[in-house]
Amino acid sequence: MRISSAEEREFLEGVFTAYSFSNEDSALLADTLVDADLRGIASHGIQRLAWYIRMIKEGTIQPQNKVKVLKETPTSLLVDANKNMGQIASAFAMKNLIKKTKQVGLSMAVIRNSNHFGTAGYYSRMAVAEGLIGIATTNTRPLVAPTNATQAFLGSNAFAFTFPASPHPFVFDGATSVVSGGKIQVLAKNNKPLPGDWAIDGERNVIHDAQAAEDILAKVAFTEHQTGGGVLTLGGNSEKNSNYKGFGNSLIIELLTGILAQGSISADTNTGEHDFSQFFLTLDPAVFGDLETFATNATAMFTRIRGLEHTPGTQIMIPGDREYKNYHENLQQGVLLDEKSAAEIKEIAQELEITVPKFK
Amino acid sequence: MRISSAEEREFLEGVFTAYSFSNEDSALLADTLVDADLRGIASHGIQRLAWYIRMIKEGTIQPQNKVKVLKETPTSLLVDANKNMGQIASAFAMKNLIKKTKQVGLSMAVIRNSNHFGTAGYYSRMAVAEGLIGIATTNTRPLVAPTNATQAFLGSNAFAFTFPASPHPFVFDGATSVVSGGKIQVLAKNNKPLPGDWAIDGERNVIHDAQAAEDILAKVAFTEHQTGGGVLTLGGNSEKNSNYKGFGNSLIIELLTGILAQGSISADTNTGEHDFSQFFLTLDPAVFGDLETFATNATAMFTRIRGLEHTPGTQIMIPGDREYKNYHENLQQGVLLDEKSAAEIKEIAQELEITVPKFK
Repeated sequence: MRISSAEEREFLEGVFTAYSFSNEDSALLADTLVDADLRGIASHGIQRLAWYIRMIKEGTIQPQNKVKVLKETPTSLLVDANKNMGQIASAFAMKNLIKKTKQVGLSMAVIRNSNHFGTAGYYSRMAVAEGLIGIATTNTRPLVAPTNATQAFLGSNAFAFTFPASPHPFVFDGATSVVSGGKIQVLAKNNKPLPGDWAIDGERNVIHDAQAAEDILAKVAFTEHQTGGGVLTLGGNSEKNSNYKGFGNSLIIELLTGILAQGSISADTNTGEHDFSQFFLTLDPAVFGDLETFATNATAMFTRIRGLEHTPGTQIMIPGDREYKNYHENLQQGVLLDEKSAAEIKEIAQELEITVPKFK
Repeated sequence: MRISSAEEREFLEGVFTAYSFSNEDSALLADTLVDADLRGIASHGIQRLAWYIRMIKEGTIQPQNKVKVLKETPTSLLVDANKNMGQIASAFAMKNLIKKTKQVGLSMAVIRNSNHFGTAGYYSRMAVAEGLIGIATTNTRPLVAPTNATQAFLGSNAFAFTFPASPHPFVFDGATSVVSGGKIQVLAKNNKPLPGDWAIDGERNVIHDAQAAEDILAKVAFTEHQTGGGVLTLGGNSEKNSNYKGFGNSLIIELLTGILAQGSISADTNTGEHDFSQFFLTLDPAVFGDLETFATNATAMFTRIRGLEHTPGTQIMIPGDREYKNYHENLQQGVLLDEKSAAEIKEIAQELEITVPKFK
């Protein structure tokens, strides 16, 4: 079924306002979820709402807390998200970095005491909209088993990178692991199997039952009870296909987030503080030359790649192509919603006594 | 067989001096190759020498040309390598960035008109030796087939990231593709099969014959004759295991190198200019807190990861662990050398009438 993005936005703003977020913050939070659904990133759209509300009720998320700047230089920013939603501190940080980078060429921010921030691409796209290269990363709950390990330790740490191009920017946005936990969640909600080598059990055997994988992830991510198993690093189950590179990529994000923020590393977010950390970087390509030239040359490269010889029945897509195609289509036809999430939305609306959005 | 690293260094300095590099540049070039061999990265060690010499003889490498600074700000540096070896401009750029970052918190450099620069980790380790986070990247000859493509287009673009830790820094250093072309080259030289899904033919079938793969790579990387086939992106042959993430990672390096440098993208380095481009970034963690605390916390995380439950007969290693172990061992026992490279070294020595190093 589908829901119009305008109705989704209105509903979400109502829910967040009802949970004591400021009007401005409610609008931002709604926008990040609608934006993900429009881009076809259902794993990070409205299906997360029930989970966010659980964290608000548990006190993990503190809707009225204000963002605090702890340290600032002309090129850097250390921010305390103050246990509010990650989206709020992240949008704040990225707006600041854009100003700094336009003055000094590049700048970086670290956020501590944060929560889930939605899609990483939301923030790196803020930078590219201003003609800058944007990088956004976060750690997460522990979901990912390092190379050779039989238990989860790393987050499915997200990484986004954007670069100016036409007709839309280059947008790489995804978990550094083979898939995000959210992608497995969506398949489990829809009773579909895992199509690839994504998850392992406690003996590092690959499993394809999405619900079995989701059961493992729910334990490793949210409890101290480590039964073993988790999501694989990019590169799969075996060292012979260099899965230690995917492991390394995820570890780099751990260093830039939890370690630089002096917050929890992903492995410790299932106990105690539940805090996430984020890292952002913006670079101004104009210090090296003309912005239009860079965008034109990048666009020309992408056009050549899309036109390369390929296997029959497939298509070569540049990171961002699918998202922008989805965006324009879903703006017209409404965003996709699975039945379980629709039921959750009804329940949330009833509890708050607000209008249930129309599903079609 | 093995060769002592001291003799390797002396031999290499003699070769580079004989090919008209300055004494300082010869020492640097020798150091980068000895360093790779000591760390067990044979693909980027002395086995590259014959290839470098071919490029010197062809005029692709111009040993006497001086590095030129084209643009400079307090946070950035645009460098022209002036067709000399990539190592020379890269070490120059990284030394400059270290100074800048200590003053302003972070800085970046782009190099154009460059050549192969050895291992990326050599430069990011220069930054970490000064307490900074280091990032080093390069594009390369076209070797890698994008997701679904049946022909090579991307470089096996290298990426290194270093972070302070004990007893040695975190050093992630590798091709963004499933493996570097050099790794296939070494297996072909040793008549060994490819152990994983690394290379494809012109119909995107995985091939395991190293010499067949090397024959494909020699054509796609060095001639305009595109027969199809190449190296796979990290994530393997199929979209279902997210090989588009490996594709995205390689594309990011294309943007930061060839595009920002306004040089050739990897796809165009097999014709015309043969120029490579490099990108470097250094960050000072001290702007966010105490360096010792970061290194201590990173070290504690790595210790926990090494001690995780794992499959029998395996070991969990942190990026850098293997390299530093190799380094200390090979410093004692000498670096490994394959027969074909030993034969090449003898030939090079005879042509220059310099002493052949002792093999044992």
